[in-house]
Formats: sequence, structure tokens, C-alpha cells
Amino acid sequence: MRGDVAHLGPVELLTPAPEESLRFFVEVLGMEIESQAGQSVYLRGWGDYQRYSLVVSEAKTSGLAWMGLRAWDPEALQRRARAIEATGLGIGWQDGAYRFIDPDGHEMRLYYETERYRPPEHLRPSWRNQPQRYTGRGAAVKRLDHVNLLARDVGACRRFACDMLGYRHYEGIRLDSGEEAGAWLSLTTAAHELIYVKDARETGGRLHHLAFWVDTREECLRAADVFIDAGVHIEAAPSKHGVAQGFFLYGFEPGGNRIEVTTGGYMVYDPDHEPIIWSEAERARGQFWGVKTVESLHYYGTPPTEDDREYARAAGVAA
Amino acid sequence: MRGDVAHLGPVELLTPAPEESLRFFVEVLGMEIESQAGQSVYLRGWGDYQRYSLVVSEAKTSGLAWMGLRAWDPEALQRRARAIEATGLGIGWQDGAYRFIDPDGHEMRLYYETERYRPPEHLRPSWRNQPQRYTGRGAAVKRLDHVNLLARDVGACRRFACDMLGYRHYEGIRLDSGEEAGAWLSLTTAAHELIYVKDARETGGRLHHLAFWVDTREECLRAADVFIDAGVHIEAAPSKHGVAQGFFLYGFEPGGNRIEVTTGGYMVYDPDHEPIIWSEAERARGQFWGVKTVESLHYYGTPPTEDDREYARAAGVAA
Amino acid sequence: MRGDVAHLGPVELLTPAPEESLRFFVEVLGMEIESQAGQSVYLRGWGDYQRYSLVVSEAKTSGLAWMGLRAWDPEALQRRARAIEATGLGIGWQDGAYRFIDPDGHEMRLYYETERYRPPEHLRPSWRNQPQRYTGRGAAVKRLDHVNLLARDVGACRRFACDMLGYRHYEGIRLDSGEEAGAWLSLTTAAHELIYVKDARETGGRLHHLAFWVDTREECLRAADVFIDAGVHIEAAPSKHGVAQGFFLYGFEPGGNRIEVTTGGYMVYDPDHEPIIWSEAERARGQFWGVKTVESLHYYGTPPTEDDREYARAAGVAA
Amino acid sequence: MRGDVAHLGPVELLTPAPEESLRFFVEVLGMEIESQAGQSVYLRGWGDYQRYSLVVSEAKTSGLAWMGLRAWDPEALQRRARAIEATGLGIGWQDGAYRFIDPDGHEMRLYYETERYRPPEHLRPSWRNQPQRYTGRGAAVKRLDHVNLLARDVGACRRFACDMLGYRHYEGIRLDSGEEAGAWLSLTTAAHELIYVKDARETGGRLHHLAFWVDTREECLRAADVFIDAGVHIEAAPSKHGVAQGFFLYGFEPGGNRIEVTTGGYMVYDPDHEPIIWSEAERARGQFWGVKTVESLHYYGTPPTEDDREYARAAGVAA
Repeated sequence: MRGDVAHLGPVELLTPAPEESLRFFVEVLGMEIESQAGQSVYLRGWGDYQRYSLVVSEAKTSGLAWMGLRAWDPEALQRRARAIEATGLGIGWQDGAYRFIDPDGHEMRLYYETERYRPPEHLRPSWRNQPQRYTGRGAAVKRLDHVNLLARDVGACRRFACDMLGYRHYEGIRLDSGEEAGAWLSLTTAAHELIYVKDARETGGRLHHLAFWVDTREECLRAADVFIDAGVHIEAAPSKHGVAQGFFLYGFEPGGNRIEVTTGGYMVYDPDHEPIIWSEAERARGQFWGVKTVESLHYYGTPPTEDDREYARAAGVAA
Repeated sequence: MRGDVAHLGPVELLTPAPEESLRFFVEVLGMEIESQAGQSVYLRGWGDYQRYSLVVSEAKTSGLAWMGLRAWDPEALQRRARAIEATGLGIGWQDGAYRFIDPDGHEMRLYYETERYRPPEHLRPSWRNQPQRYTGRGAAVKRLDHVNLLARDVGACRRFACDMLGYRHYEGIRLDSGEEAGAWLSLTTAAHELIYVKDARETGGRLHHLAFWVDTREECLRAADVFIDAGVHIEAAPSKHGVAQGFFLYGFEPGGNRIEVTTGGYMVYDPDHEPIIWSEAERARGQFWGVKTVESLHYYGTPPTEDDREYARAAGVAA
Repeated sequence: MRGDVAHLGPVELLTPAPEESLRFFVEVLGMEIESQAGQSVYLRGWGDYQRYSLVVSEAKTSGLAWMGLRAWDPEALQRRARAIEATGLGIGWQDGAYRFIDPDGHEMRLYYETERYRPPEHLRPSWRNQPQRYTGRGAAVKRLDHVNLLARDVGACRRFACDMLGYRHYEGIRLDSGEEAGAWLSLTTAAHELIYVKDARETGGRLHHLAFWVDTREECLRAADVFIDAGVHIEAAPSKHGVAQGFFLYGFEPGGNRIEVTTGGYMVYDPDHEPIIWSEAERARGQFWGVKTVESLHYYGTPPTEDDREYARAAGVAA
Repeated sequence: MRGDVAHLGPVELLTPAPEESLRFFVEVLGMEIESQAGQSVYLRGWGDYQRYSLVVSEAKTSGLAWMGLRAWDPEALQRRARAIEATGLGIGWQDGAYRFIDPDGHEMRLYYETERYRPPEHLRPSWRNQPQRYTGRGAAVKRLDHVNLLARDVGACRRFACDMLGYRHYEGIRLDSGEEAGAWLSLTTAAHELIYVKDARETGGRLHHLAFWVDTREECLRAADVFIDAGVHIEAAPSKHGVAQGFFLYGFEPGGNRIEVTTGGYMVYDPDHEPIIWSEAERARGQFWGVKTVESLHYYGTPPTEDDREYARAAGVAA
């Protein structure tokens, strides 16, 4: 079963402030508009091999509409669809993709057929092993990297992702109560491509954040300089996570969704890697260099609950 | 078959100048001595999960003794051994590893059982998701990253690696004559973990270079500062490859083997990735930013041929 | 008068834990021992042009014994000595240096004659425009950068530094009460070389921190990785100051003195630069990217007061 | 006399391809258009404290029209004007600036009165100690850093700059013939702000390059990524100079003028710094890490001579 699912993306993000959100993704994150249709804009990082990795759509509220996953080949797609259908979490086929939900209600779309990016003249790169010209605009994110989903039952979601989608479990958090509060999962040697963390609000189907990749820590620091001067609310300034050792910057796009600029971490080459499970006591150390984790990272998600709206308003984003 | 082989390492490197070589790996590259036995020293980068990734052994000449490959599980090991044996390139079993050669004569050792690193007190890391304390000594390389082997018939070696070991072919070079002159291969999404390039000397079983990973380009620049002041001959100053986009620094360890400090590159997520094949005309552009490729990178390998000895002597290393 | 004083350094730091302090400066910060005499060790960064920039001396408590300042020429030295003597803060001449105190009681030593560094063979650099070989050990600090002194009357100290020593006033903090709570001063275009901040303990002659320079933000991040794994207490993880825009890492050497690894900031070229004065409201924003300033940065200094000892003990340093 | 001249800038650059040049400075280097008048556009880096640091003007050929220098105060301006006038190199007063030429015929304009930058709303920074918002566009250069002028008699120009303008002489090149072939000069502790190098064409008043500052080496590497994909001819890929240790990237703006993106180097604190003079033999080592200096750096300047035009055409810029 290992290898049936190749990678994450694209994802569809909802925003009640579509114009401002678009300006954020283009001017601040430095993504390109690949196309537009209806209430949706299709965006890409300069390193995304597919036509787009992010769909930003106008909606009444924020949140993640669905998360795409590309199957390794047509057989893998059929195999996964059948297996998921048997769990009762399937929705059905649409445009070649098999739609389903995870145990917390997040919609996922598994597909195989895709379109590779063919850059227009003004975005043609100098070297053929790069899908698009590097423009260096704003944070200049390279590609969609990972998705962090809130869940009422992290353990159930983690088991679903591992058993049904082939994710490997690299790190996790277990509370003193025994409850599983976080799971870092990957389809490759990268330390995380999908994360589930406990939803403090006990709702369902919510997004914690989308993360976009840059190649170096220095670019993450630059991104913070870009954010602060563009008036983007920085929720957590650049630092290094203890869990998974990713280097991060967290801010909010105007629609209210949390966005991470990420790099670093480590590669897991060991085929028998035992998940590293952190206790509450260990988590109390804060981040890698001792930075106390910002409170809002523990509860805020999108769409926001009533309780989240105050925080969103203070951050100057749609609530 | 995809996934039978998990990763590269350890490798055994030969040196006619063992004391000086050891000093290079410890003081300049910043590796740790894990243990010693007979004429061999076992070394590791701070991020290697196994006990060691490099064995440095005293020998009459330089070069690569063998290259280790870890199988995904015991069944995968048996499956690969049987398949390779059928090609006639097998040598046989030794200490749980299946020994064989590639079509150019490089010895490889496929194994499954391994020892994970258990750091002594003074090398215990602050976080459990890191195998060893980061000391920051010299270039402070994180782990063995890839091996570049010279081959008389690159195509034959590339096919062997793909068909027998499960490598994927991401980039390559084809001469105007039609001859395959280079192949960038990987077991994971990383852009290269094994490279074959044409041996200009038409010998066999020679090493082009060993590459060690650092996380950022800035660390690669630092490594060059460390090299120059440590009297290490820099063959190619830090810059970015056109092929595979890796950021590099090439120097020679005192035994005469070429060592790269590497970072960067890109990840291949596309399961149907078509190899990107470069023509002679394209290669004539030089490296990514136009740096002309240093001549010696086209011919020098270890063990050196008679023709290589002059270059080695000029570089101040064992010839 | 502009230009009578050329630069800061060396400084003498006191420590009740001399062996552990020495290990910190050599192994963690990566400085070299230039010589030893009595209870003192003379240390240098690889970029310091003088023989040493830091004297670490065994003492009953921590703190700064004195801070050296090099005069531009012999006449400048005499001119300053006479002017300071007239203020009543002079102590007198010793070994060619004029000793005096600032209004808060910190001893300073103004001198002209000095010894330039002559590296021994094993520390000879590859290029003659660098005083010493770059070894890349630990944080590998380049040179002493600035000193931050606590003061009961910041305004009085600032005026003394500007009027008597020729410092320029680039940034400052003024409380709502009208009291001057911080002053960033420089002898050059660098944004700060001497800082005075309000001593919350209302003692006298105390040190806030010594800062050592690295050339890039990336090296500051590396330094944090080195600190955490060396068991050095990190008081404030790498981030960017709002005031003066310096990039910082704060930790404690085992003797209890606060040490900063610093880079970044900006250059002041305007000869008529108006000091930028920050209000309490502005300071409440925290650091550049919104990181809340760590509480202990507002009160802890060396030698510690009774109230500071608890913090020192928690940080695992001499109290 | 030390201190009569405060700093370099603005400078006026000539281009026969004004539209393309403007696009380069705005889109690739990331500068802002502050204003336009007649055939001139006034540009600034995000860290320039004055209204503009670069004037780009349409002309029949490329080259430097003049180089501005700001005096420390009105008296310094008068003092310098009188002294220069006495040398016979004065031109006269214009709009409050004293115009003169150096011994090679480069026009310089010394002034005191200036306008500080007042950003419009959309370029207002988040922190008051930064003149303008950091937009992160393209190479995002911070400010004009230094000018490198070609000269037939380097020694004469160096002496003029030191004796008449107060520059300090930090590094230099002396040929085996005894001729002075390069001089690195500064008004501050920065290792170079004005450079004279031998004009191989023996013309007069030519420009070697203008250099713009970025804060880190990583930004210089990014700039090369931006250049290559924007179709800017890279003359010398990022590396580190041996002389003065500056980190560099050289390319050509469409008008044919050489532009450097620079960072790094070292600070000279020693008031008695002896110039470090390099011999031909030492220069033969190439750059810091051994990169051979690109041939065209030894002869090409603007305006181009007949002999330079071929190179300019090959680089795709105005000739």
C-alpha cells in the first residue's frame, strides 16, 4: 500500500475577503495567478510542478474547502477509492477525483490525472528543471508544503491517514490524560506533509494552517520583514519548532486563515522510524530555542468559532 | 518494487593518508568519531540516524571501497538479492549484507539490520528528534547526502540502478554522439542520491565524489571559509549547479578523494516525472549562474590514474 | 572633538566560575585564548585586530570590571583625559591608559598604544586582510561589538558619553514620565556601540550585556542551535530588535553575565541624524516582529542583586 | 580635516536605453521611483535616508555623469570647496553644490543641504527607524553602497581622494612595475566606499561599477536567481572578493553599465590601519575561494570604448 498516494495539493481555501486575500497571496507571498474562474482564483508558487497548488474562493466564511491528494497511478487511485468507500467516509467521484472526508469531516479529493505547468513567455525560467521563473516578489514562496488540520479526535484521523492513505507517523503529542493531541504525518522522507492537532473548540472540519515552503531560514526572516511592512498580522515571529524542527513564520491572510512560511526540518530515512511522542511536560519547554508558544496557536482555526472572532478582529482580519 | 531500497549509507572510503584524512573529517567537516577498529575509523554527521555513515580506512590508494544501501525490510532485502544474483553481478552474503557490483565494478552492500545511534552523554542533544548534539564544529555537516560514481557506461549503470535497486531517474546528460554522460538518480523525492557520470579515463569502479549535507546555502559559504583557512584545496567555490540545482562546494580531503558540501536542489513530487535530459549545448552554459565548470571536475576521480596524479599533487593531496 | 575616541575594547569581564566561563567563550562562542596571566585569560574573536578584546577574570562575583576605549591618537588621548578630569570623574593614569568612571560608576579606560595581533602558525589566515584564521568553531563570533550598561540616570550617562567621549546619539527610549530609559550610542556609522538602559534595581555600575558580532542572521540562528545543545540557557531566542533593528540571541555565560550574539542593524550616514526616541506605547509593541520582550531583560544585570539571584539560579548560572 | 565629507550619494547614471534601464532598477533591483523630471528618473533603495540615491538619465551613451558627496556641515563644505579650488580641479558652484573633477576627470558634486525621505502612505514603514517600507521586490537592494571608478593614474586619484576629501586608504594593488593599480577607500569604518582601479583602455572619466547593498550573503544569492530568470547577463556569479572580502554579484543593466549587488566585508576600527597592498602574485590567486577573476572585469567600463562594444553586445546590453 506504501506509495499509493504521491503528494498533497492542490487545496481550496475559502475567504470572505477575496480581493484582499488575493492581494496577500500575490503581493506578499509572491504567488502567481494562473487563472480565474467564477469566484475562484488559481494560484501557484514558482516551484509547483502542477498548474496550480492553491485555489482561493470567495465564500461566506474562511476555512479549507478541500485538500487534494495525487495518487501514484490510476490503479492506486482505484485501490484507495475502494478502500475508503468501505469505511463509509466516501462521498463519490467528481471530475476524475474521488471525494471523501476524514473522520473529522475535512473533505479530501484523490485524483491522478493532472496538468503540468506550461509557463507563458514572461514567466519562462532560465533552466528547464524549474517550472517557472523565479521573480523574487515578496516572500517568494516556492510551493505548497503542508496542511495542518484541527481535529476532535486526532488519533482517529491519524489512523485513517496512515491506514487509508499511506501516511507515515513521524512525531506526535500525547497528553497526560492519554489523549493524542497531535500527529505529524508524511508521504515522503520530509518530516511532515499533513498534521493533525487537537481542536480546542471541539467543532469539526477546521483548518489550523496552510504552509508554503521557502528554501532557507534567511528567506523566512525576509518574509517576516515583508509581512510587518505590508501590515500583515504576525501571530508568531520566525523561530524553530521543537516538534519536527521546522522553521516557521505564522501570519494571517485577510480572509482570516492562518498561513505559515516554512523551511528546515529533517529527513526521515529510517524505514522503521519509531514515532517520537512528546509529553505535556516536554511541550511545556516551548519551541526549540525556548520561545513560549503563542496562545492563539492552541485554539484559533478557520472557520472561526464565536470565541475565535475576537482574536481575528484584533489581528485585523475577517471574522 | 518501488521502495525495496530505503537509502544510501554507510560508505567506506579509502585513504593513503589516514591521519590527515581523519583530521579533515573531524576538524574541517565537523564529523564525530563513533568508533575505531583496525585500520578503520567510523564517522558520523550530527544528523545521521545510524551509528555511522562513513568508514575511513587506510589503504594503498584512495577511492570508494563500497557503498551501503539499506533495504526497506527483510523481505525486500531477499527480493533484491535474488534479482541481482540473477544478473550475474552478485558477490554473495557477508555479515547479513548482500554484496554485489554495479556494471562498472563499484561494490555495493545491501543490508537491513542496523544499529541506531545512541549518543554518549557529552553528545546528547537537547531535543529527542535529533540523533546527536549539534556542536557547530567547522563545516558541521549534517549527514551523508549522495555519492557520485564514475562509469565507463553510464547508461548501463543507470539502468541497473533503476531496474535492480528502484532508483528513479530525474535528470541526465546526453552527448551529441548519443552517449549518456550523466544520470541523477534518487530513491526519494530528493533530486539526487546517486549520480553516475562518464569516466573520462575509461577505468572502472572509480569515485567522483562523496557529498555531505548542510541545511542552508549560508552554511555552504561558511564551509568555504573554513576550507580556505584550514588549507583545504577548493576545487570549485560555492555556486549552484545547473543540473539538479544543488548548491555546492568541492574540495579534496588529504587522501585525494573529492568531497562536496551540498545543500539546496528541489523535490520531485510528480510520480510521472520525465527525466530532464541536458544536451552538450546546454551544458556549455556552465553552472546555474554561468560559472564555467572547473576542468578537473570532468576527469579527476579516485583512485587517480597516472594522468590524475599531477592534479592531485597541485592540490596538495595524496596522489 | 568628533573622532577623539576610535572604538570600544577590550573589556574585562568578571566571573565566579572561571573554568566554566572559559569553556563557554572558547567552545561555545568559538573565541581563541591569546594568553593567560594570573587570574585572567585574554580572548579574541577571529576578526579582532588587537591582540585581545575580552579579558575574563576570576572574581567573587560577575559583572564588568572596566571597558576599554581606544583614542584616535596620542593628542586625542590627552585631550579627552584633561576634559574628563575636569568633570571630577577621573581616576588617573595606569599603564598608559586614563582611567575614569561614567556617572553611574562604570570604569572606563582610554588608551592609545596597543598591540596588533600576530597569529601563531596554526591560526594564520589565508588572506592578509583578516587578522586570524577562521576556524568555524561553535558560534564563531567575529569580534566584540558593543556593550550595554545599566544606569540609574540614563540621561546623565548619555550626555557624558556624547559630550566627553564623542558618541553620537542614534536612538532612545523616553518613558511617559519623561524619564530617559535607554540610549543607543555610537562612535561610527554602526547603529550602536554603547547602550545605556535604565537599571530597574537602582544599583550602580552594572552590566546589562556584552555583544559579539557575527556577519549574518543565519550565523545567529546557528549560534542558538549551538547554545541549546551545549546546555547554555537561552534568555531570548533569535529575533530582531525594534530599537536599532539589531538581530539578537541572548544567553548566559556560566559566570552569570548576559551575552548577546548580534548582527544586522543599519548604518547611519546622515551627519545630522536626529535621535529616534521611542515612547512607552511604541515599546509595548515588543520586538520588530512582535515578539514580547522577555521580562528578565528589563531587570537582570551583573553583578546580580539579591532579587536577580533567583533568575540566575533558574538559568543554571552562578548567582 | 577628518570628517569633512560624510558620505557618498546620490549619483547620476547615464543610459542609452532608459526604459529598459528603469525596468531593471525597479523590477530587478527592486528600487522605488521617487520622482521624474525631464529625461531623469530619481530612484531609491528602501534603506536610503535621502529622497533618492540614484538618478538615471537618458543619454547618447552609458557612464557616470557625476557622483555626489555630502559634506558634514556647511563649514566643511566651504572648507573643502576652497581646498579643491586651489588644486585647479574645481568647476564651480551649482544649486548649492560645489562641482569639481578628480584627476581622471570624473565629476563630483559636494553639497550639504539635502532632503530626507518622506514616504507616501503606501511606502510607510512599520518602524520609524527605517526610511521606507521593505517591499521585498526582486533583489530588494537596501541602499547605494559604493562606486568603483576607472582611472589612468590610480595613485593620483587616490591621493586626491585622501588629501582633498578625507578618504582613508584601506587596501590597494601594486603591480610588479611599481604602478598602483587599485585603491580601496572609505570615509567610515566600512572597508570600501570608493574604489579606483586602473583603466586598461587608458581613456578618462569612466565608470567600473555602481554597487548596491543587501544585508546578507543569502540575499546576494537570491539576487543572482532573480538576475538569471530576468534575463540579466551575469558577468560574475556570487562569490567573495579577496581584496576587501566583499561578497559580490556582477551583472549589466540594459544601458550597459556594470552593477554590483554587494554585502559582507569587514570594518576597520584601527585608527592607524596600514593599507594592505596586494602584489601581482597574490592577485593571481583569484578571488577569496580561488575563483578566477572574469577577464572582462579587468577592462570593461562605461562609456564603452570601441574594444568594449563587442563584450557589451555579447552581454545583450547597449553598446
